[in-house]
Amino acid sequence: MTEKYPFSKGLAGVPAAETVLSFINGQEGKLYYLGIPIEEWAEHSTFEEVALALLLRRLPKKDEMKMFNAALRSARELPPEVIDFILDLPPDTHPMAALRTVVSLLEAYDYDAKLEDLEAKFRISVRLIAKFPTIVAYFDRARKGLELIPPDPTLGHAANFLYMLKGERPSDYEARVMDIALILHADHGMNASTFTAMVIASTLSDMYSAITGGVAALKGPLHGGANERVLKMLKEIGSPENAEKYILDKLAKKERIMGFGHRVYKAYDPRARILKKFAEELTKRSEFYQTAVKVEEIMIREKGAKGIFPNVDFYSGLVYNALGIDTDLFTPIFAIARVAGWTAHVLEYLEDNRIFRPRAIYKGEIDKKYIPIDER
Amino acid sequence: MTEKYPFSKGLAGVPAAETVLSFINGQEGKLYYLGIPIEEWAEHSTFEEVALALLLRRLPKKDEMKMFNAALRSARELPPEVIDFILDLPPDTHPMAALRTVVSLLEAYDYDAKLEDLEAKFRISVRLIAKFPTIVAYFDRARKGLELIPPDPTLGHAANFLYMLKGERPSDYEARVMDIALILHADHGMNASTFTAMVIASTLSDMYSAITGGVAALKGPLHGGANERVLKMLKEIGSPENAEKYILDKLAKKERIMGFGHRVYKAYDPRARILKKFAEELTKRSEFYQTAVKVEEIMIREKGAKGIFPNVDFYSGLVYNALGIDTDLFTPIFAIARVAGWTAHVLEYLEDNRIFRPRAIYKGEIDKKYIPIDER
Repeated sequence: MTEKYPFSKGLAGVPAAETVLSFINGQEGKLYYLGIPIEEWAEHSTFEEVALALLLRRLPKKDEMKMFNAALRSARELPPEVIDFILDLPPDTHPMAALRTVVSLLEAYDYDAKLEDLEAKFRISVRLIAKFPTIVAYFDRARKGLELIPPDPTLGHAANFLYMLKGERPSDYEARVMDIALILHADHGMNASTFTAMVIASTLSDMYSAITGGVAALKGPLHGGANERVLKMLKEIGSPENAEKYILDKLAKKERIMGFGHRVYKAYDPRARILKKFAEELTKRSEFYQTAVKVEEIMIREKGAKGIFPNVDFYSGLVYNALGIDTDLFTPIFAIARVAGWTAHVLEYLEDNRIFRPRAIYKGEIDKKYIPIDER
Repeated sequence: MTEKYPFSKGLAGVPAAETVLSFINGQEGKLYYLGIPIEEWAEHSTFEEVALALLLRRLPKKDEMKMFNAALRSARELPPEVIDFILDLPPDTHPMAALRTVVSLLEAYDYDAKLEDLEAKFRISVRLIAKFPTIVAYFDRARKGLELIPPDPTLGHAANFLYMLKGERPSDYEARVMDIALILHADHGMNASTFTAMVIASTLSDMYSAITGGVAALKGPLHGGANERVLKMLKEIGSPENAEKYILDKLAKKERIMGFGHRVYKAYDPRARILKKFAEELTKRSEFYQTAVKVEEIMIREKGAKGIFPNVDFYSGLVYNALGIDTDLFTPIFAIARVAGWTAHVLEYLEDNRIFRPRAIYKGEIDKKYIPIDER
């Protein structure tokens, strides 16, 4: 049998869909949303604008942006039954499990979920983008026994999230750093969580199903969970002078160094470059930061020739840590940003849908007999 | 740029993984689990045995089967908090949304979910297979305001499900028909829901995440939701003499006839053949059944030459309907069976894992400038 489609484990390099949303030039370390370099978005835009641009697949006009901002702000609050549910969750629930379950539950309170047209799915997308920060902040405060802080409609998306999380208004600088972190994580081609959301949506299942699946996939340590592990590693190393031995030992044992290397990037991840600057400013070049820089230096020396460089996860954890955010909320924050990309890819794919149904290569025997249990 | 991997929309024909679990010979209309024809499983086995065989990737021995049966029966009940949650769900929640949310919630009550080894994932698989019927039956009775019926450890998997659903013990014949329906739906290669579960698991996310995603994908009308729509269509047609006009009208309008055709099968679906016999017996050749047979006859006459034949969804709805089961529970019953295949494929893939990260084909412009909002 001639193989029209050769097998590639993990579908590495295999095209799964066409998109205009984002493009990664892995060789040169460039990332674009809608053809515009990520550095320009980080400098000039807001997360809200990036999200709407991805949903519309173009830069939004002024009035559209105004309406979108209003829609987001009025959709932030959760139904009272869902708030009660969050308050009742066991406090040791994994924050991503809490987010995944609440997203799934929200379908029961949204009439639009029963509709199959793309406009209903667009409305749900806006609501999900609006509600993700509330779910994460409410769950975090609920598990700590703290009073929930309702969303403040005078604050932007990033500032309001920090406010709901910590109970005090962030400085403009902190809010802007969080905003940029969200911008940098909003989309990234056909990664595992985006792909999961698209596969689910391709069955014509509903938007809540698709996004629940996205959260489920992002939870994995090989995907969204990586930046938590970076921070854990940096804490283990402790100070710059321990870095050399630690890293070389790990490399000798062929262990994975979290926060380095990427299926697509074979150069410096442009998002890591932007976050590194904020990590430096926010930590005021703390020992923690210096340890990270030292690890980067050693890794580039040892592995740079092989195309292994820091990825976005390497510096995002330092930034969130410096903003006073708990380590196990790093992946939920990734989700707060990426829900924009998930919904946008789903809406784009559904415009010309075909169910994802790849093929399995059968490696077993065939035409065996069923052997009765007493004869086995 | 040479394309090593050509683009195939929906990944049709593209190999995504290797497996020994099931094999579909689409040209000849044959389905095998572990190399053994589906007809033999339907004749000699039980759903419990099929599930364990898939998990172990071989026919289980007598003592293993005994232990597995004991494990399933003792894991059927849900944590009290989860039962309270089901009782509190809005009664009009989509049953698949309820199932998806409860599966997601169960992680919070399972210590094994924090462990990353395959043995913990195996234990969770057994628990999920055990609990799926309970979740579906409890939700159905809760939404109807009926008292919940706790699982009966003296009954097998299929019989106990019918008992929890209806509050009375099924006849041996009914229990066996349900058992065979579950056997027939237990696995089916790299379908969208199995693939979803594998993509999620490949990030090293947990088993609850993977199976939540499987439920989310199965919910779609192009996947698990098809048999509901078959029944709706047969009700619309009403009687055999209306079938000809109805089907030809639909075909003339190029509308899809639910329950016919399959990405893989280009011959009669062997599962449909088995279910057709039970539909005939259970309905005692009712007008409903005769309408279905007439639709099949017309469709094979019109489309058989193109490889379009009845698939499993065409007769499963008639069988479930004859067993007195509500139409919107057909897809959850599919999930009760398929959770065996989902967990088995996840466990198989994780033995030699690689994260699924396909590629997107970028179709947009590149190196565009960010235009300030006032200038758009």
